[in-house]
Amino acid sequence: MSRFSEPQDPIFRRLNTSLSFDQRLWPYDIQGSRAHARMLAKQAIIGDNERDELLAALSAVEAELAGGTFVFEDDDEDIHMAVERRVTQLAGAVGGKLHTARSRNDQVATDVALFTRDGAGHATRAIDALAATLLDAAEAHLDWPLPGYTHLQRAQPVYLSHHLLAYVWMLLRDRERFAFAAGQTAALPLGAGALAGVNFDTDRGAVAAELGFDRVAPNSIDAVSNRDFVLDYLAAAATCATHLSRLGAELVLWSSEEFGFVTLSDAWTSGSSIMPQKKNPDAAELLRAKAPRIVAHLGALHGVMHALPLTYNKDLQEDKEHLFDAVDTLDLCLASAAGMIGGARFNRDRMSAAASDDLIAATDVADHLVKQGVPFRECHGIVAGLVRVAVDSGRCLGDLTDGELAAASARLHPPAFRALLEQRAWLESKVSEGGTSLARVREQLAAARAALAAGAG
Amino acid sequence: MSRFSEPQDPIFRRLNTSLSFDQRLWPYDIQGSRAHARMLAKQAIIGDNERDELLAALSAVEAELAGGTFVFEDDDEDIHMAVERRVTQLAGAVGGKLHTARSRNDQVATDVALFTRDGAGHATRAIDALAATLLDAAEAHLDWPLPGYTHLQRAQPVYLSHHLLAYVWMLLRDRERFAFAAGQTAALPLGAGALAGVNFDTDRGAVAAELGFDRVAPNSIDAVSNRDFVLDYLAAAATCATHLSRLGAELVLWSSEEFGFVTLSDAWTSGSSIMPQKKNPDAAELLRAKAPRIVAHLGALHGVMHALPLTYNKDLQEDKEHLFDAVDTLDLCLASAAGMIGGARFNRDRMSAAASDDLIAATDVADHLVKQGVPFRECHGIVAGLVRVAVDSGRCLGDLTDGELAAASARLHPPAFRALLEQRAWLESKVSEGGTSLARVREQLAAARAALAAGAG
Amino acid sequence: MSRFSEPQDPIFRRLNTSLSFDQRLWPYDIQGSRAHARMLAKQAIIGDNERDELLAALSAVEAELAGGTFVFEDDDEDIHMAVERRVTQLAGAVGGKLHTARSRNDQVATDVALFTRDGAGHATRAIDALAATLLDAAEAHLDWPLPGYTHLQRAQPVYLSHHLLAYVWMLLRDRERFAFAAGQTAALPLGAGALAGVNFDTDRGAVAAELGFDRVAPNSIDAVSNRDFVLDYLAAAATCATHLSRLGAELVLWSSEEFGFVTLSDAWTSGSSIMPQKKNPDAAELLRAKAPRIVAHLGALHGVMHALPLTYNKDLQEDKEHLFDAVDTLDLCLASAAGMIGGARFNRDRMSAAASDDLIAATDVADHLVKQGVPFRECHGIVAGLVRVAVDSGRCLGDLTDGELAAASARLHPPAFRALLEQRAWLESKVSEGGTSLARVREQLAAARAALAAGAG
Amino acid sequence: MSRFSEPQDPIFRRLNTSLSFDQRLWPYDIQGSRAHARMLAKQAIIGDNERDELLAALSAVEAELAGGTFVFEDDDEDIHMAVERRVTQLAGAVGGKLHTARSRNDQVATDVALFTRDGAGHATRAIDALAATLLDAAEAHLDWPLPGYTHLQRAQPVYLSHHLLAYVWMLLRDRERFAFAAGQTAALPLGAGALAGVNFDTDRGAVAAELGFDRVAPNSIDAVSNRDFVLDYLAAAATCATHLSRLGAELVLWSSEEFGFVTLSDAWTSGSSIMPQKKNPDAAELLRAKAPRIVAHLGALHGVMHALPLTYNKDLQEDKEHLFDAVDTLDLCLASAAGMIGGARFNRDRMSAAASDDLIAATDVADHLVKQGVPFRECHGIVAGLVRVAVDSGRCLGDLTDGELAAASARLHPPAFRALLEQRAWLESKVSEGGTSLARVREQLAAARAALAAGAG
Repeated sequence: MSRFSEPQDPIFRRLNTSLSFDQRLWPYDIQGSRAHARMLAKQAIIGDNERDELLAALSAVEAELAGGTFVFEDDDEDIHMAVERRVTQLAGAVGGKLHTARSRNDQVATDVALFTRDGAGHATRAIDALAATLLDAAEAHLDWPLPGYTHLQRAQPVYLSHHLLAYVWMLLRDRERFAFAAGQTAALPLGAGALAGVNFDTDRGAVAAELGFDRVAPNSIDAVSNRDFVLDYLAAAATCATHLSRLGAELVLWSSEEFGFVTLSDAWTSGSSIMPQKKNPDAAELLRAKAPRIVAHLGALHGVMHALPLTYNKDLQEDKEHLFDAVDTLDLCLASAAGMIGGARFNRDRMSAAASDDLIAATDVADHLVKQGVPFRECHGIVAGLVRVAVDSGRCLGDLTDGELAAASARLHPPAFRALLEQRAWLESKVSEGGTSLARVREQLAAARAALAAGAG
Repeated sequence: MSRFSEPQDPIFRRLNTSLSFDQRLWPYDIQGSRAHARMLAKQAIIGDNERDELLAALSAVEAELAGGTFVFEDDDEDIHMAVERRVTQLAGAVGGKLHTARSRNDQVATDVALFTRDGAGHATRAIDALAATLLDAAEAHLDWPLPGYTHLQRAQPVYLSHHLLAYVWMLLRDRERFAFAAGQTAALPLGAGALAGVNFDTDRGAVAAELGFDRVAPNSIDAVSNRDFVLDYLAAAATCATHLSRLGAELVLWSSEEFGFVTLSDAWTSGSSIMPQKKNPDAAELLRAKAPRIVAHLGALHGVMHALPLTYNKDLQEDKEHLFDAVDTLDLCLASAAGMIGGARFNRDRMSAAASDDLIAATDVADHLVKQGVPFRECHGIVAGLVRVAVDSGRCLGDLTDGELAAASARLHPPAFRALLEQRAWLESKVSEGGTSLARVREQLAAARAALAAGAG
Repeated sequence: MSRFSEPQDPIFRRLNTSLSFDQRLWPYDIQGSRAHARMLAKQAIIGDNERDELLAALSAVEAELAGGTFVFEDDDEDIHMAVERRVTQLAGAVGGKLHTARSRNDQVATDVALFTRDGAGHATRAIDALAATLLDAAEAHLDWPLPGYTHLQRAQPVYLSHHLLAYVWMLLRDRERFAFAAGQTAALPLGAGALAGVNFDTDRGAVAAELGFDRVAPNSIDAVSNRDFVLDYLAAAATCATHLSRLGAELVLWSSEEFGFVTLSDAWTSGSSIMPQKKNPDAAELLRAKAPRIVAHLGALHGVMHALPLTYNKDLQEDKEHLFDAVDTLDLCLASAAGMIGGARFNRDRMSAAASDDLIAATDVADHLVKQGVPFRECHGIVAGLVRVAVDSGRCLGDLTDGELAAASARLHPPAFRALLEQRAWLESKVSEGGTSLARVREQLAAARAALAAGAG
Repeated sequence: MSRFSEPQDPIFRRLNTSLSFDQRLWPYDIQGSRAHARMLAKQAIIGDNERDELLAALSAVEAELAGGTFVFEDDDEDIHMAVERRVTQLAGAVGGKLHTARSRNDQVATDVALFTRDGAGHATRAIDALAATLLDAAEAHLDWPLPGYTHLQRAQPVYLSHHLLAYVWMLLRDRERFAFAAGQTAALPLGAGALAGVNFDTDRGAVAAELGFDRVAPNSIDAVSNRDFVLDYLAAAATCATHLSRLGAELVLWSSEEFGFVTLSDAWTSGSSIMPQKKNPDAAELLRAKAPRIVAHLGALHGVMHALPLTYNKDLQEDKEHLFDAVDTLDLCLASAAGMIGGARFNRDRMSAAASDDLIAATDVADHLVKQGVPFRECHGIVAGLVRVAVDSGRCLGDLTDGELAAASARLHPPAFRALLEQRAWLESKVSEGGTSLARVREQLAAARAALAAGAG
């Protein structure tokens, strides 16, 4: 019997049901129920034979779900009810004992924590794979110069390896973020009951140990109200996706005819329905476009939690679709980025030509004067004047005459000036730690490989 | 001389200038310049006397800024230029040497990292203070029962201490988030130059040590492009503010006449311009209202970073206002929450009366049957039926007759049933770890005090 | 033959395909293709017999899609390609003529515009239904007093009709917003080609007329780049959902035991897995929880459009899932709100008792003094003093003695003062336009019914 | 006297005060108070002499505020209280009558509505100015070809005029959005009182007429709860800013050395602190970067309104900072865009060279075959094959031999094929409405000028 005298309105059911999306939680739900049943028996809340009947039924349900033969019924409001209903159909009345000393409130929080922890795990492995791909690409293009840009203006030349490594460091930070998010799932909600704890002498530590939690959530109210770990996953995913959007945008830019720095493989591009010549970097564009989606999931969940009274409220059901879509989207983006980078062909000639524009040696010329004791600000002014003369007359710095150089500064010895305007020098003079000179990039490569290995180990 | 032949448009200057907001970075800017000057001398890039002149000028500038006597000039585009300009006015031409081997790109990233680290520090201290206030309030109301709510319906009674402790655990997680954010500021950007490293044999480690960074940023491109640490601060702040919005919303609710669980002090409420009787929980409402603001700052910075090509782009200037306002808002909210909680007077009678509604013992009645071997699901149905009889006839569970109880289940021994409907029992039977029984709450209080002390130590 | 020599990577296909979600555009795609084929024949770009073959094939494809017998193939990247592929299978080579003088870029923009226009239509009809339900509820509870709250503190009493009508006016504004969004879909993109127009003398006006567009998009580049109308739909939906979140939150609050103003029907509430007594307002909570989801869709699409170069970019594919989910969510929320309000039973006694708290007459007492010439500010002070005396001594205003009244102000004639403290007077004295007196509410009801009818006509 | 016995906590005051930002509302506050005072006298609620004293005091206060001599006091919680306090200081006790028959709740809603309406007005005028600048630029570069891009790949050539006009149409839609937002401010809140109407026979219509509102808000509860019009302004601003971010991003891209399509004037660019050669498009980058800020304001206000109970809550104070910053930011961005476009120098040679890449004629070749009766899909395949031959062998389409053409299709008459590969033809063949042929662009220019004039009239 129920306390309700009227059936649910069909529109309410459509609004209320979560089965269409939460069914993917089934592996966690079965896993949690198994640990719960074992603990109930251990604490003599149910008998050992009852435990065994429940475990057998859970295994049968698991097989049905894994095999795609599980039949959902109209009254299955969510995956938790569906599993319990089926357990009871298979095991008989003892099935009704499975829900002893727990509630859907702590059960769903536990399932979502397990899912989130796994999601952080996937993300980490996919990050490692992408970082490894980028490291290989960096190694393969160790000494290929291209312009470094600030404000999308050519600024100073760098090696392609150095540029690609910038993304590796972003990803290594993303890995720390996912580790943090995983760490935030380490307190077991199960056993908090509806909100106040339960009327049984349970052993939550045993359940935690079986399910891989480090500890039990210390406050039952917080345990069922808390979705911080989902926010943490989403924050990590949002930043990672934003990094990928920068990579995607750069691949789009570099594969334009104007830049021509990279050619994406046919396997990662697509054609046009109307323009036969087109080869479009759709995957790179989608990397760019997916970040706002994940950022929006984060904002949405913050919105859901905003001003929500303790403890469990139905609003919390809105955690799942945001989380699930973020996990799926990020996994796909990370795999795509690795595929794209793995198949990309960089164009040494185009990059090198762009990096040969001698205006980008201006800083080096200024620093050359600095080393003769001229204050940097003064040097900056001298060289800016030279640049203006060159640009106004449509020439390179290297074309300036001895007279023009002398007019700018007595310290500008024309032969030394012209020697400076050799590309290699501009790159190899960046000898500071983290700089683009080859020795420093080699150091960096080794450090990145070590960091990646340390995390992955 | 400059490479520009035309002055900046006044509208462009208004758009471009950051001085109005970035001037608050001055302490970090001075600190960074000091460390930089010392390092330049240590590496013999400038002379020791030049270093001393620069340090003296920096101290003079610092005194002007601290004393409010610093005069900004029209050409001061940002705080970095203003400081350098003034150093040069005071020290003469040697001032032009300060910018040797650095760029505004690595300079501003360093200043913002220092600011962020400090912001995480403030937040942590304010969190500790609020948590301590909540712990004291929990201790002072250890055994005051009130209803725990799910779906804002009375569900099971809890102690006020237990409820308040739920917020403490949220805050302790927030502290971990800020520690993570602070950790993400630990790699020194300075020395990365504009993007490629610098043409000097600098010692970035020395600068890092002086400024309290753990290490140097390993990639110069990433160093000037990276604002992850600001995102990390904002993510931590957004979650913390969302927690505070829940607290604020609950205080608003509890101070309504209908709930009447709390009376906020006059010092933390305000009146109405038109209704003389009003005493409004404005502070609690603002706690509720500020979370979306901080969440929006996080979303905005993700938006700024979205698809941004490496390395430095002017867009990055948009990091600061979002960060600054988030820091100020969060600090004020945390302090306000502590003030409000400290001055709140809880109403034991109103809470206790609400917790005495015997319908909230329904789970306990069901569990009572469970302990006699009836499967939980079956018990749930029996008790739901009793609830329906009681509600339909406008009675409490305790008013049901022996006959009605017998009709529901042969196992419902009326005396035991009625004994159960004693309030204390409902609370004290929640003996599971993290549950609301007094012994468990005392355990929890001790654990929370220890966790707080461990973090704060 | 294609310009590609390598097949697409399977991961790229998963990232790139939109068929799983854009297949719901098929009715618009068929409709658009029909109009396009007719126009091509009208302009003699294809023959009349070719048109007829295309139309026949389109009808066959439509029947398959409507009947669920359409078989998607692995190479169907999106619904547009799937339809064209199937048309060609059915009609033979002439199927290849359907894509003459159009591109997927203008085709998809057209389909999405049609979908958006329909979505705005659904929303409008659902708003009308909800507004009508609210109007009926207002009429049925015309003179039921309850407290009006500011800051969730009882402020001044109002009639329930007046309170419910506040939501009607919000909804009427939402209707204007959807009308605006629909108006923004009125310029036909089709015929813009890939971006530059097409090489044929088409008649876009004829296509527009057949498809119900008011005019043709005047610039082909803008036509394929523009998703403003989706943003407009999402902005309208976000505001409407935010309104519904206020209604949902209020229903949650009012159905708490503490307020007790409303009892939601069994058909719109649900039980607890563990607490047999619970009757939870899940639908109202979900109304509250869905707004951030729709707001997030809006933010996400702004993020996608942010900084996007003209013209079509693959990023635009991200418009659809945000739009589709917003449409589905809003439709469901509007229908749910109507269902819930329709079935809600308001509790006259609880509301009336709450409205009888005589502190909420304080403004009226002050205004009573105003009418005797005392400046309002002074009256406010006098009455605030009375309130303090009453509250401090735990009495009502009506319990104050003649002496206490006289002490506060000589103008406070005790009999007039006590007469004022009759509930009716407080409500009926609000005679200003839009106020809560019955005459004004009746005016308002009539105006709202007229406005609703005018829009719906 | 007040009902409060304790002063406000200083931290609460800092949280609660809005004076620092809402003081800019003073002109609206004065204007509203004037209209209110006149109406009170008209309705004989105050005397004519009282009205005159109030008006005189309001004028004096206005002069102080306008002249910067107004002295704020510590107790001035907001601009409304400050103005009333000063009026009372100047006019004496009669000042206390100004607040008769109104409340801060309706007063602030009115001030914000007036501010919003003005904000929509500014935005509209700034849009008109930018659109006019773009139209002039389009006219000045009527027949300058450049590549149109899809997926940032060269797709089909267009005229620069056509490209610039795309932005004009976006702006004309933005203008409609601001007109809508302004229309949503047309119902006067003033007179709604705190929430329930007032105890006086006011004439709200008279106030509405004086303040330029079309009508009075029909429901007092809604009147003080409603901030839809701010959301409408923010939604319009967000979309407009997103349009500007596309323009900004394109200017950044086009001013890169690789594209070289545009040179921004010195007045709208800036230099580098370290790289003397740099000329950075900071203004264009900031146009790009500001959109997420305005989008975030919109999301934040939705967050504030989310789940907020009726009627006025302090949370609504959070409307102002979001609105004010959005107005200031958008105004500055629009003016900057106009300045930048006005000073931009386009590079005909670079654009023309890019548009001469004969691969972008591929669609035209396909359509040439279509006109001979070959189904489009088949033509697409033939031309894609030609493209592949050309690309694989590093040649242009024009370099293909007669044999290669014949091998691809018997219908490809080499002379006709080569004639097609003349640039003009590719542009001028886009004869469809809204296409890029000159005749169509001229039509479009005229239509855009007319639309702009119609709106501005």
